Amino acid sequence: MRIALCGGTGDLGRGIALRLIRDTDHEVVVGSRDPEKAREHATQYEDELGSHDVEGDINGFDNAMAADRADVVVLCVPAYHLSDTIDAIGGSLDDTVLVSPAVGMRREEGTMNYNPPSAGSVTALAAAAAPDGTPVVGAFHNLAAGRLADLDASLDWDVLVVGDDADAKTTVERLADGIDGIRALDAGPLAAASEVESLTPLLINVAANNDALADLGVSFN
Amino acid sequence: MRIALCGGTGDLGRGIALRLIRDTDHEVVVGSRDPEKAREHATQYEDELGSHDVEGDINGFDNAMAADRADVVVLCVPAYHLSDTIDAIGGSLDDTVLVSPAVGMRREEGTMNYNPPSAGSVTALAAAAAPDGTPVVGAFHNLAAGRLADLDASLDWDVLVVGDDADAKTTVERLADGIDGIRALDAGPLAAASEVESLTPLLINVAANNDALADLGVSFN
Repeated sequence: MRIALCGGTGDLGRGIALRLIRDTDHEVVVGSRDPEKAREHATQYEDELGSHDVEGDINGFDNAMAADRADVVVLCVPAYHLSDTIDAIGGSLDDTVLVSPAVGMRREEGTMNYNPPSAGSVTALAAAAAPDGTPVVGAFHNLAAGRLADLDASLDWDVLVVGDDADAKTTVERLADGIDGIRALDAGPLAAASEVESLTPLLINVAANNDALADLGVSFN
Repeated sequence: MRIALCGGTGDLGRGIALRLIRDTDHEVVVGSRDPEKAREHATQYEDELGSHDVEGDINGFDNAMAADRADVVVLCVPAYHLSDTIDAIGGSLDDTVLVSPAVGMRREEGTMNYNPPSAGSVTALAAAAAPDGTPVVGAFHNLAAGRLADLDASLDWDVLVVGDDADAKTTVERLADGIDGIRALDAGPLAAASEVESLTPLLINVAANNDALADLGVSFN
């Protein structure tokens, strides 16, 4: 498949790009509002893969061109850029699955709390902003991006997948399962997204309060 | 320590009672609004332990008497009984740590959602209902009670502990750590309780949507 990482120049995009190229046969393209920045990061990711003896060919484009002909678009942008990004790529979507990994959080007195938009979850916000007929799947909300982007770090994490389109969910579950050390789990419909997103501030709070733990994920057992 | 399980005749109370007796040296007493019911369940728990070659002495009382002289009281009651139960035992609390494991949830079209009270979390509700000076710690929110109560089942679960009183949290963390297969983690102050409670509907949704999984807990890694 062709996987476009829109806003893919941050840690989450970097981590997904590196691991998809290393662990799967998917084509990966990096998108950014600034195509030059996308190209620079694509080259950086190739270099990083090369330093791990992995040959990878990654292109960088503006977000709309990155999304063009993509089977899956991962919206690696903060929640407040989500609607703008979907608007920018809307004309490029054709049988494309949109993946929303963003979470709304706010920090107060050192504690991170879930801060959902009025739509109930950021994933639901993405679904509301998506063009008619474009399925939105929530996934990759709970990945510690720094560890994900460190190819020397091993993972033992579950990725929770939510959505209302069964085929689109299956596509995303298979994509996530392709990454070494990640198991995709079906966490239910879009209406269950807020509980998945709430796990992200919990992971941050647990890492902040336990000396031996950092860059956490979870596994269900 | 003396551990009182108020409302301890349900699955959660049963599981905590059986495992504390089997795995630790704590004294365990079962409380119920109906002292006769508490005594019956205490005897059942002793019999269950006996069938696993564990000798245990468990007494049953009404909730107030169970809480009397307890070091830790675990409020094993549904969220809507929490305030009543705290009112009933309030006169018995003296240097006692109150533990709140209850979660507010509602099910809609087969999906479980977190449904917090206006206090922000059920744990915060318990803290508001507790007598002045009685510390409230949130813990044991995310335990699948059926598996917990099955002494033949092994666990590999983290218990998340929240609260504003450091000493009380340490007491509860040590209590939880004493159970085989459970690791206590500090998830922050009371203000972080809603994210911990939200994990419970998530666990239920994941178990409901993945055939191979049931009676789930999580581990952070």
